[in-house]
Amino acid sequence: MLKILTLIGARPQFIKSAAISRAIRGVFSDRLEEVIVHSGQHYDANMSSVFFEELNLPSPNHHFKLSATGHSEQTAEIMLQLEKILDLENPKALLVYGDTNTTLAGALVASKNNLPLIHVEAGLRSFNKKMPEELNRILTDHCSSLLFCPSESSIENLKKEGIVHREGKCSSDAPGVYLCGDVMYDNSLYFSEKVKEGLADYLVQNNYILFTLHRPSNTDDPDRLKAIYVSLIEFAEKFEKRIVFPIHPRTKKAMMHVLTEGEWDSLRNHKFIYVTDPVSFHEMISLEKNCELIITDSGGVQKEAYFFQKPCLILRSETEWVEIIDQGVALLIDASFDDLSEKYQLLKSKKLIFPELFGDGKSAEFICDKIVKEIQ
Amino acid sequence: MLKILTLIGARPQFIKSAAISRAIRGVFSDRLEEVIVHSGQHYDANMSSVFFEELNLPSPNHHFKLSATGHSEQTAEIMLQLEKILDLENPKALLVYGDTNTTLAGALVASKNNLPLIHVEAGLRSFNKKMPEELNRILTDHCSSLLFCPSESSIENLKKEGIVHREGKCSSDAPGVYLCGDVMYDNSLYFSEKVKEGLADYLVQNNYILFTLHRPSNTDDPDRLKAIYVSLIEFAEKFEKRIVFPIHPRTKKAMMHVLTEGEWDSLRNHKFIYVTDPVSFHEMISLEKNCELIITDSGGVQKEAYFFQKPCLILRSETEWVEIIDQGVALLIDASFDDLSEKYQLLKSKKLIFPELFGDGKSAEFICDKIVKEIQ
Repeated sequence: MLKILTLIGARPQFIKSAAISRAIRGVFSDRLEEVIVHSGQHYDANMSSVFFEELNLPSPNHHFKLSATGHSEQTAEIMLQLEKILDLENPKALLVYGDTNTTLAGALVASKNNLPLIHVEAGLRSFNKKMPEELNRILTDHCSSLLFCPSESSIENLKKEGIVHREGKCSSDAPGVYLCGDVMYDNSLYFSEKVKEGLADYLVQNNYILFTLHRPSNTDDPDRLKAIYVSLIEFAEKFEKRIVFPIHPRTKKAMMHVLTEGEWDSLRNHKFIYVTDPVSFHEMISLEKNCELIITDSGGVQKEAYFFQKPCLILRSETEWVEIIDQGVALLIDASFDDLSEKYQLLKSKKLIFPELFGDGKSAEFICDKIVKEIQ
Repeated sequence: MLKILTLIGARPQFIKSAAISRAIRGVFSDRLEEVIVHSGQHYDANMSSVFFEELNLPSPNHHFKLSATGHSEQTAEIMLQLEKILDLENPKALLVYGDTNTTLAGALVASKNNLPLIHVEAGLRSFNKKMPEELNRILTDHCSSLLFCPSESSIENLKKEGIVHREGKCSSDAPGVYLCGDVMYDNSLYFSEKVKEGLADYLVQNNYILFTLHRPSNTDDPDRLKAIYVSLIEFAEKFEKRIVFPIHPRTKKAMMHVLTEGEWDSLRNHKFIYVTDPVSFHEMISLEKNCELIITDSGGVQKEAYFFQKPCLILRSETEWVEIIDQGVALLIDASFDDLSEKYQLLKSKKLIFPELFGDGKSAEFICDKIVKEIQ
C-alpha cells in the first residue's frame, strides 16, 4: 500500500482532486492510500459543505489556518505547516495540482525532504513571469519526479526547459513525464452522467447560449465592461437567442457600479437574457452539456465547452488552451457586437469536429497507475 | 541612485559579496546604494568580527535570527523576515549569491514581489537534485532577471533550460545573462596584494604543498579517511616534501576517532607535515599564493589554486569546475598513495598554462555596471 499526501488549497484544485480521489478509493483502493491536506489558501462560500458533497470529495484529513495574505508569507506559512504534517504522516510522495502558492509550497517542502513530487497539470506556460502562477508552475515542474501533462504542448514546454521523460523508476533527476489527458474531462463525463435534473422549463435544449464573465481584465475596466454589456444585449436581440448568465459576484458588483440603474434593470429583466446567481457545480455541468454555444472568459469553461463538444467564443485576447483554437471550434473575440455576431455566425456555419485532445476521460486512472508503478 | 538589497547568509557568500561591496562603495558610489541583510543561516566562529575586518566587509544593516534547523523551515523563516525588510527598505532589486537556502528564499520573495532578482554564480549545475544546492540553483536562476555566470559552461547549462540572454532592459521573462568571470578571482588578486605578512620561517616559498580536507564524502567514511591519512604520510616521506595542513574541525574530530592515538600523534608530529588549526582568510591567501601545489577536496580552494597558477590534485571523483581539469592543470585523484604520487609527478613534469578562465579580476565592476544599466 503506497501512502501519498495530496496538498490542495484552491477551488479548482479540489475539483481536479475529486477525479483522482475517486480512482484511489475505487480501482486503486488496494494499492493507494491518500491523505488530503487543505492548505487553507482559499476559503470562500463556494467551498461550502454542499460543494464537497456535490463532488463526493472526502473531507481533508488536515486543514491549515493561514494568517498571511501576501504571496510569499502565504507560501512560507504553508511550508512551515506542511513540514509538520510530513513528519506526522510520513507519506511516500506528495501530490500537487496546478500553479498556486499551495502548489509551490508543496513542491519546495517535498524537494527539501527528498520526497518524490507528483505534479498534475505540469508543463503549462503563459510566458509571463509577472503572473505569480507562471513561476509557481516553472519552479514546481523543476522539483517534480512525476509530471502529468494535459496536452502535447505542455510536454514541449517542459522539453524546452530540459525536463524530459526518462524510462525507469522516476526521480527529480530522471523524471517521468506523461501525456495523461485532462482530469477535468474525467470529471465532466462522470458528473454529466450523474446530473440528471432537468433544466429550467424555459430553456430548450441546444437552443440557448451560456455566458460567463469573471476575469479582472474584463470586469475591472469600465469601458470594456460597458462594451461587453452593449454587445450582449444587441446580440441577444438580433439573433433572438436566449442567453443564460450565471453572474460572478465580482462581475455583478462591477456592473452595478458601471451601468446606470436603467441599464442594469434592462439587463436583469431582459426577455432573452436570464441573469442568475452563481450556480452549483452540478447545475453548471448541466448548463454546459445542454447549451448551443458558450461565450466565456474562463479557462475552465472554455475547456468544458470542448468536453461537451460545444463551440466557444472566448472574450480574451489570448488563451492558454491554444489547442481548441487550432482545432477551429473556439474563437477569440473582442468586446464588440460586430466581432461577436460575425464569429458566432462563423462557428454556426462550420461543421465542427472535436477529436480527443484532452485524453479519453480516464486520466485519473492513468495517473494512479503510473504513481503505483514509478514511486519507489 | 539605485538602491539594491544584498541577501547573504553563509561564509562563502560574505566573501563573494566583499568584492561587489568594494565596487559599490568605490567606483559606483555615486550610482549604487547597497543594503546588506544577513539571513542568519550560518553562524559560526569563522564569521567573527575578525573575519569581517579582514574582508573589509561592511556590517549587515539587518540581521535575522532563525529558530529553524530543517531546510524548508529555514527557507520559510528567511522568506517571512525578508518580506518585512523589503517593505521597510523598498529596494529596486535583490542581489543573491550561489545556492543556499538563503539564495532560494531571496529568489522566491523577490519574484512574489515582482522585484528584479540578480543572481551571482548563476548556471552552475551538478545534475544531482538530491543535493539541496542543485534545486536552489535551478529555481533561483528561473526567478532571475540578471544572471551572472562565472564560466561558459554555466551559460550553456542555462541555455538547456531555456534561459537565454535578451537584449534591452532585463526582466524575468527577458533576462540579461552575462559571462562575468569569478568575483573570487577579484578577491584573490585584491587580497594577495594586501597580504604582505611573511610565511612561517620554516616554509620555503614554492617548496611546500598545501593540503585541505573537509568534505563529508572524505571525512565521514572511516576507510576512506584512513586511506587518505596513509597516502599523505607515504607521499610526504617519499618526496620529502613539506605539507601544510590547516585542519577543519570536522576533519580533526573524524581523524581523532578513526586513527589510533599513535597514528594521530605521528601525523601531528610528523617532520614533513605541519598540522595547524584553521587559518584566517588572509593566511589562506598567503599559503595558496606561495605554495608549490595544492591537494584539496574544496571547490573554492581548487579555483583559488588556478587563480594563483598552482597545479592542483583534487581528492574527489568529480568536480563542478570542469574547466580546470580540461585545462590540464588539475587532476582528480583517488585516496591512494599510488594515484597521488603518480599524478603529482605528472603535473610536475608538464609545462602548465593558466589562461584567463575566470575573468580578468574585474568581475565585480562588470556586474555593477550591468546592474546600473539594466535595472529599471
